[in-house]
Amino acid sequence: MITPTLGELVAHINGQCSGDMSTLILGASGLEEAEHTHISFLSNPVYYSKISQTRAAAVLVKEDAVLPPTNPHTAIIKCKDPYLAFCMILDRFFNPFEKKQGVEQPSFISPGVVVPTTCYIGAFAYIDSGVKLGENVQIYPHTFIGKDTQIGANTLLYAGVKVYPGTVIGNDCIVHAGAVIGSDGFGHAPMPDGSYAKIPQIGKVILEDRVEIGANTTVDRATLGETKIEEGCKLDNLIQIGHNVHIGKNTVIAAQSGVAGSTSIGFGCMVGGQVGFAGHLKIANKTRYGAQTGVATHVKKEGTDWLGTPAMPYKQHLKSFVVLKELPQLEERVRNLEKQSQQHTPPSQD
Amino acid sequence: MITPTLGELVAHINGQCSGDMSTLILGASGLEEAEHTHISFLSNPVYYSKISQTRAAAVLVKEDAVLPPTNPHTAIIKCKDPYLAFCMILDRFFNPFEKKQGVEQPSFISPGVVVPTTCYIGAFAYIDSGVKLGENVQIYPHTFIGKDTQIGANTLLYAGVKVYPGTVIGNDCIVHAGAVIGSDGFGHAPMPDGSYAKIPQIGKVILEDRVEIGANTTVDRATLGETKIEEGCKLDNLIQIGHNVHIGKNTVIAAQSGVAGSTSIGFGCMVGGQVGFAGHLKIANKTRYGAQTGVATHVKKEGTDWLGTPAMPYKQHLKSFVVLKELPQLEERVRNLEKQSQQHTPPSQD
Amino acid sequence: MITPTLGELVAHINGQCSGDMSTLILGASGLEEAEHTHISFLSNPVYYSKISQTRAAAVLVKEDAVLPPTNPHTAIIKCKDPYLAFCMILDRFFNPFEKKQGVEQPSFISPGVVVPTTCYIGAFAYIDSGVKLGENVQIYPHTFIGKDTQIGANTLLYAGVKVYPGTVIGNDCIVHAGAVIGSDGFGHAPMPDGSYAKIPQIGKVILEDRVEIGANTTVDRATLGETKIEEGCKLDNLIQIGHNVHIGKNTVIAAQSGVAGSTSIGFGCMVGGQVGFAGHLKIANKTRYGAQTGVATHVKKEGTDWLGTPAMPYKQHLKSFVVLKELPQLEERVRNLEKQSQQHTPPSQD
Repeated sequence: MITPTLGELVAHINGQCSGDMSTLILGASGLEEAEHTHISFLSNPVYYSKISQTRAAAVLVKEDAVLPPTNPHTAIIKCKDPYLAFCMILDRFFNPFEKKQGVEQPSFISPGVVVPTTCYIGAFAYIDSGVKLGENVQIYPHTFIGKDTQIGANTLLYAGVKVYPGTVIGNDCIVHAGAVIGSDGFGHAPMPDGSYAKIPQIGKVILEDRVEIGANTTVDRATLGETKIEEGCKLDNLIQIGHNVHIGKNTVIAAQSGVAGSTSIGFGCMVGGQVGFAGHLKIANKTRYGAQTGVATHVKKEGTDWLGTPAMPYKQHLKSFVVLKELPQLEERVRNLEKQSQQHTPPSQD
Repeated sequence: MITPTLGELVAHINGQCSGDMSTLILGASGLEEAEHTHISFLSNPVYYSKISQTRAAAVLVKEDAVLPPTNPHTAIIKCKDPYLAFCMILDRFFNPFEKKQGVEQPSFISPGVVVPTTCYIGAFAYIDSGVKLGENVQIYPHTFIGKDTQIGANTLLYAGVKVYPGTVIGNDCIVHAGAVIGSDGFGHAPMPDGSYAKIPQIGKVILEDRVEIGANTTVDRATLGETKIEEGCKLDNLIQIGHNVHIGKNTVIAAQSGVAGSTSIGFGCMVGGQVGFAGHLKIANKTRYGAQTGVATHVKKEGTDWLGTPAMPYKQHLKSFVVLKELPQLEERVRNLEKQSQQHTPPSQD
Repeated sequence: MITPTLGELVAHINGQCSGDMSTLILGASGLEEAEHTHISFLSNPVYYSKISQTRAAAVLVKEDAVLPPTNPHTAIIKCKDPYLAFCMILDRFFNPFEKKQGVEQPSFISPGVVVPTTCYIGAFAYIDSGVKLGENVQIYPHTFIGKDTQIGANTLLYAGVKVYPGTVIGNDCIVHAGAVIGSDGFGHAPMPDGSYAKIPQIGKVILEDRVEIGANTTVDRATLGETKIEEGCKLDNLIQIGHNVHIGKNTVIAAQSGVAGSTSIGFGCMVGGQVGFAGHLKIANKTRYGAQTGVATHVKKEGTDWLGTPAMPYKQHLKSFVVLKELPQLEERVRNLEKQSQQHTPPSQD
């Protein structure tokens, strides 16, 4: 990382700024935490009034922002989308992850595997036979790449990722440390004596382009055919994806959620943390699930929101739980009604 | 993998078939996905009518199956159990996992450890002193085997498995990538100043024969004594097994479930995904638990089914949740009754 | 481990005992499981009567314990806190984990990294540039330590721990196998076309002194600033800690729980297994959460207990669930009241 000047930042995001372009910018922070050498951003007009209190050396704001008088030491940078511009600056100038290149030793690369010179292979990485690597692939230490796996250009596998044989990973993917891709699906046939026979899992896993997989997440290979995660999906840490699951484009799933075998989730869905989907379900596009929801049936209507176990439509769930909290009182009200009813009912005459 | 002929498949499963025994079979699939060089299977008589639509080169069916007219290019193989026969064929002819043998370098094998010639030790595997290995053990790269651990014959540890010292693993076990066996139990004694003193965890873990452990699952060692998983148990991915837990023979547990310390689960149980068992419970044999169930009390009756948090008998839970969804309406009905009751009650005379 | 004599044990914990100080003690167990060469302990006066039935060679009891007649082969050791004394003995004499020292080969240590002679660096460990190691640090095989990470004195990282760049780990910490510290927070900005742009995660993780992190647990780095776990916290296995989370001193969290981004948990809290905290919450000190609780709102009152999803005060939850189990019956009671009400209501006259 080389310390950038304000001018370099402004040029990188194609912004407009009348400050001193030679000022060195040493870091990036939120508006309140920013030190006097940092760049920050301000997206929400509600907080425009806070701009005079920041110590930041520079703040990104919208082109059309109408701001109160600002602190003279704070340069204002106007741009189209301040948050995205801030992300671009983080990525280009303040990213602690450097692009690595070259092959470290000792590593284990099977004979016949071609490693493009733009790739990084960390020490103690293991690459089995038949593996195909795209340009700029970065494979960190302790990563295992099983036989005949394909890894697309610019894809990054952090330390200790384990990829079982025959996996297909697209371009521009990120797989975080400890994730396991292609482990056996959970398939066992019950035998008459109460034991289970293992059903061989001969399918594979396909991660399409721009998929991100979180730390220690597991994605099982298909029994037959494929487990597929379509382009642009983002999966957080410690998620379980069962065999033969299919996840549509740009769906995002938060940590510790699980999808059981053969379930198919549509595109553009948003899944909270610790959610569970039962197996063999069909889940409509653009649906959303609150944290800890348990989905046990198909979801047919696009764009709907769900919560609870078993899942209910979001608003229905909120209403039910208002009453749930008052259940003992409700029971008491019913008991009172029963007492009154008994007093007013003429004695039975049989 | 060598491409088998139809004749070789039929012989392997001891089936009967009148097709062309020299046909090469290139793969295995479900009936609908099968390509014209694949073998498939048909177990359920409900789907017998679909056999004429498959492209498969061969289909396994029951000995006594009465089928509609079939496609001439599809050879029919009669056998006792088509699904099991299909699994046997998958395992023998289409399994992407080859049995490996020999010691790759660099690996770390402590002096004095005997490695039978039938074993596989992958590069970057670490085997500490006092470890005992059975015949045909396969230890994949990046696996750590702590001191004095025993591993039985034919057991397979995939890449990156971590086994703490003193663990005992039986014959014919499979442990998937990233699983941790024998980590410390969660035991800390509260001190008067609010801090915690670590309780040393000096017990061990025993996995009996034919146990399968999923990717990134964790099994804690006992505080004293042993954490034991009996023969034939199958555990899916990302499961937590606490210290001193005991799991009976042939119990299966789906992904992301957890069993807290000192709980004892009987034999032949079936546990869904994301289920939690509290600590110090006794769970009866052959009981079953729906996904996301929370079990907080002993389960005494064998063969019972449970669902919900806290767990209720399965059918009771279903009934309660029908009403739960209508709780706001139930509250309104009670409110209406109260209004009516007030109208009909003579005014109080005190 | 050298077999200690009774005298050595008694001296180590500063206890009082009139038994034969030369007796060799071969192990440590609970009172019922103890073999005749083991030491055990007895804390709870309720069980004092059981002391005559144990086979143990020695039992730790409170200084002021009034015991029934004991077995002549069982030496009684009097001390202030029998359980803590037992833990001290376990740790000193029966701990299967030996303190290791020295650098095993092959390992990868970047030029310029200083390894104190009191440290252990296991084979296949990877230590990137700029890493700072305290005295007595133990780094097991397959551990990855990213650039510019600091690790304090006496800290122990078990096999396969992955530490991302820029992490700060204090003194006397324990991180169990497979844990990932400093992986990217889950931050993605939605784009107009339905895809997501990755928000660079340039912050870091700080683990203060005496923190313990369980196997395969993941702790995400901050987007900006820091994710911080304060001194004395104990985290179990398979836990997810999101970006910018702050956990106060001496808080303990059981397995498979998750804390979403930017939530701040106070000190001295106790969190059960499979609990979830939503993001951006403020959670009061010394609060407690039953297993599987889902916390979706701030918790403002110190020392309170919570249960259920969404979380309710513990006692309220128990009462509500008593009624929940009887919901179908409650509905029936309301239906009966409605029938009676209809019979007693004069027919409408409009």
